[in-house]
Amino acid sequence: MARNANPSYTGAPMKIDVDPVPIRVPGFRFAGVACGLKESGNRDVAVIASAVPAIAAAAFTTNRVQAAPVVLGRPRAAAGRLQAIVVNSGNANAYTGRDGLATAHAMCRTAARALAIPETLVLPSSTGRIGVPPPREQLCRGVEAACAALSPDGFHDALAGIMTTDAFPKFAAETLLIGDREVTVAGMAKGAGMIAPRVLLAGRPVPTHATTLAYVLSDAAVSVAALRRALQAALPQSFNAIVVDGDTSTNDTVAVLANGLAANPSLSASSREFPELCGAVVRVLQNLARKIVKDGEGATKVIDIRVHGAKTRRDAERVADAIARSPLCKAAFFGGDPYTGRIVCAAGYSGATFDPAKLDVYLDDVQVVRGGREIVTRVERAAAAVVQRPEFTLTLHLHAGHAIAHRMAADLTLDYVKFNSDYRT
Amino acid sequence: MARNANPSYTGAPMKIDVDPVPIRVPGFRFAGVACGLKESGNRDVAVIASAVPAIAAAAFTTNRVQAAPVVLGRPRAAAGRLQAIVVNSGNANAYTGRDGLATAHAMCRTAARALAIPETLVLPSSTGRIGVPPPREQLCRGVEAACAALSPDGFHDALAGIMTTDAFPKFAAETLLIGDREVTVAGMAKGAGMIAPRVLLAGRPVPTHATTLAYVLSDAAVSVAALRRALQAALPQSFNAIVVDGDTSTNDTVAVLANGLAANPSLSASSREFPELCGAVVRVLQNLARKIVKDGEGATKVIDIRVHGAKTRRDAERVADAIARSPLCKAAFFGGDPYTGRIVCAAGYSGATFDPAKLDVYLDDVQVVRGGREIVTRVERAAAAVVQRPEFTLTLHLHAGHAIAHRMAADLTLDYVKFNSDYRT
Repeated sequence: MARNANPSYTGAPMKIDVDPVPIRVPGFRFAGVACGLKESGNRDVAVIASAVPAIAAAAFTTNRVQAAPVVLGRPRAAAGRLQAIVVNSGNANAYTGRDGLATAHAMCRTAARALAIPETLVLPSSTGRIGVPPPREQLCRGVEAACAALSPDGFHDALAGIMTTDAFPKFAAETLLIGDREVTVAGMAKGAGMIAPRVLLAGRPVPTHATTLAYVLSDAAVSVAALRRALQAALPQSFNAIVVDGDTSTNDTVAVLANGLAANPSLSASSREFPELCGAVVRVLQNLARKIVKDGEGATKVIDIRVHGAKTRRDAERVADAIARSPLCKAAFFGGDPYTGRIVCAAGYSGATFDPAKLDVYLDDVQVVRGGREIVTRVERAAAAVVQRPEFTLTLHLHAGHAIAHRMAADLTLDYVKFNSDYRT
Repeated sequence: MARNANPSYTGAPMKIDVDPVPIRVPGFRFAGVACGLKESGNRDVAVIASAVPAIAAAAFTTNRVQAAPVVLGRPRAAAGRLQAIVVNSGNANAYTGRDGLATAHAMCRTAARALAIPETLVLPSSTGRIGVPPPREQLCRGVEAACAALSPDGFHDALAGIMTTDAFPKFAAETLLIGDREVTVAGMAKGAGMIAPRVLLAGRPVPTHATTLAYVLSDAAVSVAALRRALQAALPQSFNAIVVDGDTSTNDTVAVLANGLAANPSLSASSREFPELCGAVVRVLQNLARKIVKDGEGATKVIDIRVHGAKTRRDAERVADAIARSPLCKAAFFGGDPYTGRIVCAAGYSGATFDPAKLDVYLDDVQVVRGGREIVTRVERAAAAVVQRPEFTLTLHLHAGHAIAHRMAADLTLDYVKFNSDYRT
């Protein structure tokens, strides 16, 4: 079943920019081509290249099984400089052994040669089916073709090349003034299934869940340390706060490249104007992450789960994650049922420390549990109306401390099961 | 949707004893009546009573939100002696505050009065919807009626009274010789949804997952310590090894009562014949637990997940649990797809320490991953044939040590989502 052919897929109040509004980032060129990895014949190879080496920060999946491009790309990103990104969709190049690693190398080498840059400045990514060795020569011919097609106007072509089961393209862009220079921050992402990113940035543990690939490109001049700080600030509020199904992929990659061509005075983490760049990176990644949940396989709803008053942040995350992953809660959200018993139950088994007799629970602004007593029967109609919205916020106050957490979750739907039980989706 | 009206529900090779073969346990009487808690008018109150006080061991949910009957029953079971069990289905009496606790008390008091026994020897249980205070008087009238109907032949009536969304009754019985005395061990259970028991026995941490209620009744003469030892031995291999959806209930209760009327020489944990009684308790609980997975809401398959060669038992359990709970793996099982990439991916994010390059994976006797290389494409037809069976074993060898774990899991099906997204199931 092709997701974009799903007639029951319903629209959303969240504004989704499906028209290919032109996106340009000074100094960056883009291309997306089809090399035949996808049976549909859609674009399956993307290349993004900067005119000059860019400062880079990236985060990768924490899954112990790491796809070949992740193994290869991690130390390159850790070095703090990248000039090109080469991506294929339709095959994850994960669990493919030495052969797969050689293919990831070949992809990068092909791009490096075509762009006349060192191979170590090329970051590879792959997404698609796990465990099938990708056809190396076919893929490399695709990379060559993409390098030949690079254009400042190719953003949407590249984006098409990274997509798999996505029903719509995911992108976001901002411009801001730093000093008197206009700076662009633009991002693209793919998502859909296996979404529960736990990505780790440069050796510091930051949980993420998906096959999520996300690339943020900027012409800002910024130090490596500052760019890492911005990514580190963004992840817990964006990619590491989303759950579609709770399966953490072998391929998750979030990379930010800044090539400095805006010629603003270079920002360090202590610069007066750093918070503005950081804010833009956070907003772009949040925008992309939310679209991934919105477009989760089969998803009909986005639920913001907010936990307040936890004893520790870990406890707040435990409660939010338990609800975000609970099949029973997610099925009730799908059905538009304000079944708070399942929510309270999930909080109870989450492992967090709290007194159930003090719990408050809200669905948007409708309180459904007060001081540990379920009062949903009194507000049944109002509560049901909230849960039937395509987006709503579920808030729990544990009254056990002052820590908070936020998760964006999709519901569990018939289409999710249909899609993922289809032989070889 | 009534589960037993589901036309797509397919039979299973596992023998299920749906005919009410008579089960008697010397000294025990049983009853099940309808008091109107279930809209269907089916039996919703059960009472089990022993002619004399019985030795008792019980385990209860580890969910922080504990149903009223769990709060009340836990210290009673911990005292090691019980004479009656009173159960209602159709209402979980969970998250119902002081009022709910008073109702659980009233259930027990009513039974104690009718049976002329101390209230502290009565164990209460409830199962059904969370967060709705049960109608106390109606329930107590039901308990009175059940006490009046008690009969040595009422086993199946009582079993009907504890069921909720179960499609078939779950019971198992054995007789064994201890010395020259015949001893009976018989059990009944209910399951269906919210199944991922993590029960805790008498202060010692033993994980379980469900609304599972299970009662094992025996006429054996045995010490409290020995009976606890038997339950402790059985749980990791039975109720704490099953996962339907991964939601751990507020009400899980597993209790074993032994009234001594077989008049065998009383068994301690060091008795020569204790292993025989222990084995019977283990087999009866395993039989019940497996039936709960088989009858998991919407389930079409039982998958035995066996992890070998883990560094620690915790690691082995992590891998088995990650697969048992992974929506992607469970949907592939439903679809009969031998998608080993998803299995390897779940092992990878489980948190267990192992080298993916050494992994072996088998579907029944078909090896699909050898030394970290997926070889499923070579054995595609044979592997698909296994996954399309209604029961199969998935074995992972991590080659990281010598610890093992076993889980019995259900698949994730369209019917699971349909059933649990129906408003107020």
